[in-house]
Amino acid sequence: MLDTIRRGFERFGFVPVETPVFELKDVLLTKSGGETEKQVYFVQSTGSLQQGHEADLALRFDLTVPLARYVAEHERELVFPFRRYQIQRVYRGERAQRGRFREFYQCDIDVIGKDKLDPAYDAELPAIIVRIFEELNVGEFTIHFSNRKILLGLLASFGIDDAEKQKLVLRDIDKLDKIGRPKVREALVDLGLKDIIADRLLSLITHTGSKEELLAALRAEKAEHPVFLQGLMELSQIVVSLKALGVAENRTRLNLAIARGLDYYTGTVYETFIDAHPEFGSVCSGGRYDDLAGLYTKSKLPGVGLSIGLTRLYDQLNMHNLLPQVPHNVQILITQLDPQLSSVYLSLGTELRHAGYNVENYLEPAKLDKQLKYADRAGIPLAIIIGENEQSKGNVLIKDLMAKSQLELPRTELINRLKNIIHHKD
Amino acid sequence: MLDTIRRGFERFGFVPVETPVFELKDVLLTKSGGETEKQVYFVQSTGSLQQGHEADLALRFDLTVPLARYVAEHERELVFPFRRYQIQRVYRGERAQRGRFREFYQCDIDVIGKDKLDPAYDAELPAIIVRIFEELNVGEFTIHFSNRKILLGLLASFGIDDAEKQKLVLRDIDKLDKIGRPKVREALVDLGLKDIIADRLLSLITHTGSKEELLAALRAEKAEHPVFLQGLMELSQIVVSLKALGVAENRTRLNLAIARGLDYYTGTVYETFIDAHPEFGSVCSGGRYDDLAGLYTKSKLPGVGLSIGLTRLYDQLNMHNLLPQVPHNVQILITQLDPQLSSVYLSLGTELRHAGYNVENYLEPAKLDKQLKYADRAGIPLAIIIGENEQSKGNVLIKDLMAKSQLELPRTELINRLKNIIHHKD
Repeated sequence: MLDTIRRGFERFGFVPVETPVFELKDVLLTKSGGETEKQVYFVQSTGSLQQGHEADLALRFDLTVPLARYVAEHERELVFPFRRYQIQRVYRGERAQRGRFREFYQCDIDVIGKDKLDPAYDAELPAIIVRIFEELNVGEFTIHFSNRKILLGLLASFGIDDAEKQKLVLRDIDKLDKIGRPKVREALVDLGLKDIIADRLLSLITHTGSKEELLAALRAEKAEHPVFLQGLMELSQIVVSLKALGVAENRTRLNLAIARGLDYYTGTVYETFIDAHPEFGSVCSGGRYDDLAGLYTKSKLPGVGLSIGLTRLYDQLNMHNLLPQVPHNVQILITQLDPQLSSVYLSLGTELRHAGYNVENYLEPAKLDKQLKYADRAGIPLAIIIGENEQSKGNVLIKDLMAKSQLELPRTELINRLKNIIHHKD
Repeated sequence: MLDTIRRGFERFGFVPVETPVFELKDVLLTKSGGETEKQVYFVQSTGSLQQGHEADLALRFDLTVPLARYVAEHERELVFPFRRYQIQRVYRGERAQRGRFREFYQCDIDVIGKDKLDPAYDAELPAIIVRIFEELNVGEFTIHFSNRKILLGLLASFGIDDAEKQKLVLRDIDKLDKIGRPKVREALVDLGLKDIIADRLLSLITHTGSKEELLAALRAEKAEHPVFLQGLMELSQIVVSLKALGVAENRTRLNLAIARGLDYYTGTVYETFIDAHPEFGSVCSGGRYDDLAGLYTKSKLPGVGLSIGLTRLYDQLNMHNLLPQVPHNVQILITQLDPQLSSVYLSLGTELRHAGYNVENYLEPAKLDKQLKYADRAGIPLAIIIGENEQSKGNVLIKDLMAKSQLELPRTELINRLKNIIHHKD
């Protein structure tokens, strides 16, 4: 899965970045706060501990803080827009339990601009994720996206421009799945929204039409608040670009209810769901932010990013037996039938490896039966057997462990014939 | 480099293992002791710290302790011999300075047997390393190997069978490079070795002939101590197997002086040197051990392993400008000349990616010149330009940024022609 994700990121021209696992404690704690702060792992060497120092290092708990520090530190050398991906483990001081990990893989992809960043990137990132999830073969999935400017602009155009109140409205909207539309409507009215406004808002949020239809409905609002208009323009461009990028219509959904827990984002927001398993929650989330590294540099660095929580996804797929079968990375076992022929076995191994195959030589003296059982148990599909008999005829015996068939052929033809046999098995 | 190493391990049928970065403090400290103990990083979450607990977790400082714990824990499920490789970062509480790292990559490959493990593996591992270092393209290198049983058995046959005294002899031998043969001879005589014995020992240790010649010289000793005979048999088998595996003669050297700092090993030992840079020290070391996990399980688990200290090697190659050039992973930049054509650019990107290329779409509006400079600076070899003019003719313009040449051709021919252009550049 890691390989597929990496390949996907690179196919779109993103470059890998790795950062140290340690960040200065103060850097990590400035950024976090609240829940995350309780989950930071502090680190101290024996020496430092003995000298009675306090820990000044901590383990990264996400890949965003390291990105911000990295970009601020290398601002002069980097070419902007800076397109990087980072696949590393992050650490959180959780109690180990199902679905909660103390150490897990995060796969982040971000584009960072200097001063400005074109909305075109907001379409490219989900197109990359679509390609990757299709290759990961995890079943049907949908990337839900929205733009926080839409709801905030709409609310402002309805006269609700107090930031605190806007937050309360968004929080109520977030409960839609749990408490249902009538109760959310009630809550919105309690917050001071007129009945008609609450209804219009809710019908937009629960809109089930196509992206174009929802865009048309938004345009029909004729709201003229500049934040709303900006959001609408950005959303429209994403929809056009997704089409040009060849992303299938049903892979993305414009969903204004996507707002929760994404306060950090200022424009586009994304959440990704496995269609058959909404209970997994979002398996890839992200969005656009106005300024990545305001704490570390005076430059304004807007960005957009998406993050795959790979360990959790893997765990969930595994629990539901949804992990795609991966072929074993060893393709051929060369058995050891006659210790006198061990040089023959070793040099055949070298020859097959030069031909590009992953080959294991069985090196312990053991009964053939045991060796074949080993191959079978290890998932190695082919075994090669050369006994005194085959050797004297210049032949080799290939045993297909799944088809339970075997084939004797001249050793000189082996490499050529293997091509077909292995290709056939793929 | 990581990819090459991984591919090399897998070509010989080894399977990857990753273990958590955390080990229980007690597990780590039992194993280490001395210097290493001072370098352990202890880890504690905010919550645990606030409750006044002591740290019970620590970061791994090598991949051997995690391997031992892993094998002991999964002993029942594993198939033995267990052939695993592990490429992960390890952590040591060093002061950050040139050549000393607090976090560095280690690439370990080991075979673990149950109760016994054939000496054939002692030849397979260096053959794998030879293949990998050749692909890494780091210049000429030599794997020095020996077997601790040879010197220990010889000493015993000379009547020096006290383990402490043997250790002192080995320590003196280790100084050969620094203080020269006469002073080492003096030290050996001081330890009670007869003159003639010291000379015989030193002439074996400084032997510069071929592996076969040194083996012959060892046989000529006619020492009959069983430890010596066992070592001689193992060494002879390695020499034969290396040949059968097609390892070039000059890639390995039988060198009895290889003994230092490898007390942990009980048989074969290895050290690898870059020929032109002996000052790098050994860049890949290892050996055979009698029992991997005696602390965690009653089973006897003999093993043999080799470890590449990749971060240090990379740093040294980098300092000496010896790092092989790696082509940029982005092959094509599609420029954005006319915003009206942005859908054309996006869909061309998708098409080229489906054809297997790594392609970046320039998505910011910018002057063509700036875009080409960006490609140049980022090391992207080809740029594709489509303006109104090319679009109306159904053409595309390919710019080769290194050759500073360009080529206009029908878009329908693009994919076919790219094959030659990109292949030609590789």
